[in-house]
Amino acid sequence: VAVRAEVLAVGTELLLGQIVDTNSAWIGEQLALHGIEHLRQTKVGDNHARIVAALREALERADAVIVCGGLGPTQDDITREAIASVMGVELVRDEAVAAVIRDLFASRGRAMPDNNLRQADVPAGARVIEQRTGTAPGLLCPVGDKVVYAVPGVPHEMREMLERAVLPDLAARAGERSAIVSRTLRTWGESESRLAELLAPRIEALDGTGNPTIAFLASGIEGLKVRLTARAGTTAEAEALLDAEEAEVRAVLGSIVFSGADEPMEAVVGGLLVAQGRTLAVAESLTGGLVAARIVSVPGASAWFRGGIVAYATDVKGDLLDVPPGPVVSEAAAVAMADGVRARFGADVGLSTTGVAGPTEQDGQPPGTVWLGLAVGDEVSAVRLRLPGDRERVRQLAVISALDRLRHALGA
Amino acid sequence: VAVRAEVLAVGTELLLGQIVDTNSAWIGEQLALHGIEHLRQTKVGDNHARIVAALREALERADAVIVCGGLGPTQDDITREAIASVMGVELVRDEAVAAVIRDLFASRGRAMPDNNLRQADVPAGARVIEQRTGTAPGLLCPVGDKVVYAVPGVPHEMREMLERAVLPDLAARAGERSAIVSRTLRTWGESESRLAELLAPRIEALDGTGNPTIAFLASGIEGLKVRLTARAGTTAEAEALLDAEEAEVRAVLGSIVFSGADEPMEAVVGGLLVAQGRTLAVAESLTGGLVAARIVSVPGASAWFRGGIVAYATDVKGDLLDVPPGPVVSEAAAVAMADGVRARFGADVGLSTTGVAGPTEQDGQPPGTVWLGLAVGDEVSAVRLRLPGDRERVRQLAVISALDRLRHALGA
Repeated sequence: VAVRAEVLAVGTELLLGQIVDTNSAWIGEQLALHGIEHLRQTKVGDNHARIVAALREALERADAVIVCGGLGPTQDDITREAIASVMGVELVRDEAVAAVIRDLFASRGRAMPDNNLRQADVPAGARVIEQRTGTAPGLLCPVGDKVVYAVPGVPHEMREMLERAVLPDLAARAGERSAIVSRTLRTWGESESRLAELLAPRIEALDGTGNPTIAFLASGIEGLKVRLTARAGTTAEAEALLDAEEAEVRAVLGSIVFSGADEPMEAVVGGLLVAQGRTLAVAESLTGGLVAARIVSVPGASAWFRGGIVAYATDVKGDLLDVPPGPVVSEAAAVAMADGVRARFGADVGLSTTGVAGPTEQDGQPPGTVWLGLAVGDEVSAVRLRLPGDRERVRQLAVISALDRLRHALGA
Repeated sequence: VAVRAEVLAVGTELLLGQIVDTNSAWIGEQLALHGIEHLRQTKVGDNHARIVAALREALERADAVIVCGGLGPTQDDITREAIASVMGVELVRDEAVAAVIRDLFASRGRAMPDNNLRQADVPAGARVIEQRTGTAPGLLCPVGDKVVYAVPGVPHEMREMLERAVLPDLAARAGERSAIVSRTLRTWGESESRLAELLAPRIEALDGTGNPTIAFLASGIEGLKVRLTARAGTTAEAEALLDAEEAEVRAVLGSIVFSGADEPMEAVVGGLLVAQGRTLAVAESLTGGLVAARIVSVPGASAWFRGGIVAYATDVKGDLLDVPPGPVVSEAAAVAMADGVRARFGADVGLSTTGVAGPTEQDGQPPGTVWLGLAVGDEVSAVRLRLPGDRERVRQLAVISALDRLRHALGA
């Protein structure tokens, strides 16, 4: 059965542009990956009549509506009331949910404002989706043979609940009485069209069964993602299908796959350094601190990251990094920076960036010209890239390219 | 006349979550600032029937619909056709628009694929909104006494066209046969509720005329924005109203206003350094390169930014920055880092950050404890902050707080 879903995001702050709605995009991606048709997304403010109208219209077009937001404890949070109106039922206090909320406040040693118990009010006939990371439970609300799911607007709470309860329920409605498991491989180094070309034989081979499926997601400086989704009677069987397909995909793509678990590049590089007991220092010119900033976003980076130098002024490169006189967008400068920062910081590995972010050329080099230097053991070298885009994009591409170069040098 | 508007974003890639729709949020903000009621936003894919249905429904509820996207040259771009269907008219090639597109390709020395002329097709009776930054013109399409505006999905093209043509036309429909001019002041250092309290007398004083108006926008690490909007017979008269009101607001808020022209903090700091002929170097611990990265995003930063050191490992602080032994989350460390980096980089000003990003405490200090060091002339000092939020938020708040401290030290 083809199941059609719509997404309704609730919140006046969304309409006013005080918050960008990233939830709808994420839900859209998940629906696509699970093969659930999804034709419209709507946003309305915290207004009873408008939420009710939007819900009714969506239920006319679709089999399932995912409502995101408006489940909090304040008087503005009226998604529960709106769904009850659409179902034609009253709200009933769920004492089990109320107990969980009371316990949560007690365990934090905080007094609970009475308002919070509003989160335990449930439309009669709705099923509670247990809260795990926040205080608001989700709701699964039958409306005739259709369904409204309500999930919180806080992104990590919404995601956890969608994966745990909503997507499996949608899959079951689509006649999938089975486990659906996904796995995301991240790649760096090939374009989306080249990736599609390389994987075309695999996709063709899978077309017969449609299980597992392969989907691509371009994710900018996070790499190109290859998402494998398998359906089977049990999770273990689905995982076994994914294991087999991942092996096939890796055989085709080789080392451009940098993660089989949807990890960012900096986390992968950190994992390699930890495993090898090595430490890192970085010397940045055109990236101006962005490489270091991405690295320190990895939990536990202090175990392997010693620090870095942002050598923005030309003479700083000479004074602090022993870069020889001459053009600073050059192989010699990149090599000296990597070697110099390694020595300065007493690190095992040195990584460097120098180049022209634009908009104007420098030392006769056009914007997008980037040298990436690397010093690992006896190997000290640099490679030149020509990166597309504006100033900001050139910088961001230089950052992930530098980290990817380090990944390969570490044997990945 | 109260004018009601809706926003319709068109693009299958939006539904699939390949792109997060930031346009709708921005348009929502603009509509709010211009006092135009705005009750719903919708997203649909590149499908003729669905775009037509969404447009018709929106026109039933609202007086004006802003359609964003689907104006490109490819076969997927069908917003023009959908609007023509809703208007009940044919598409007509606009030769003036076609000439502009041909000239644009010629001036870039590129061959023009024929597809591009689709962008010159206009629903009969629609008015063209001249393209200035891209190849696609916008459209102003009367539907009875209502209107559909079509603007490109490329954010900077959309914004330029909205400000130049759509918002003024909406204002005129609201009975404003006059100029509307806005000005955004950015502030740092007070909460939104405190700002509202401080400005309450001004807002009350303006309530009589409603001109100019004052609105707040919390913009996270970009500061709290205070937007002044004035209406008058001419732009010059509106600007004069804004000048007077800005003076009133500045008299109340004082030096927490860091820009009267919606500039980011780093650009303001850069402007002060340039004006004073001073250069800057930064030493970062918990912010790990984020201060430097924000600085180098300012065009022309190389004139005043010499570079920085990311001293992530503790011993690096001693070796490279002459930080004395002892706890590194301390006044002594922050002071030594600021002074040390200034000396190392031969800069006039040194700025430093050290602290506990979390999630666990360090040296007995709780997460959110941050020391900001500053060395300007003979003044070398540090201040301690307690910042809220998770690891990432503490870092981001530390960055803008450090830049703001520098701004005050430079006499602003």
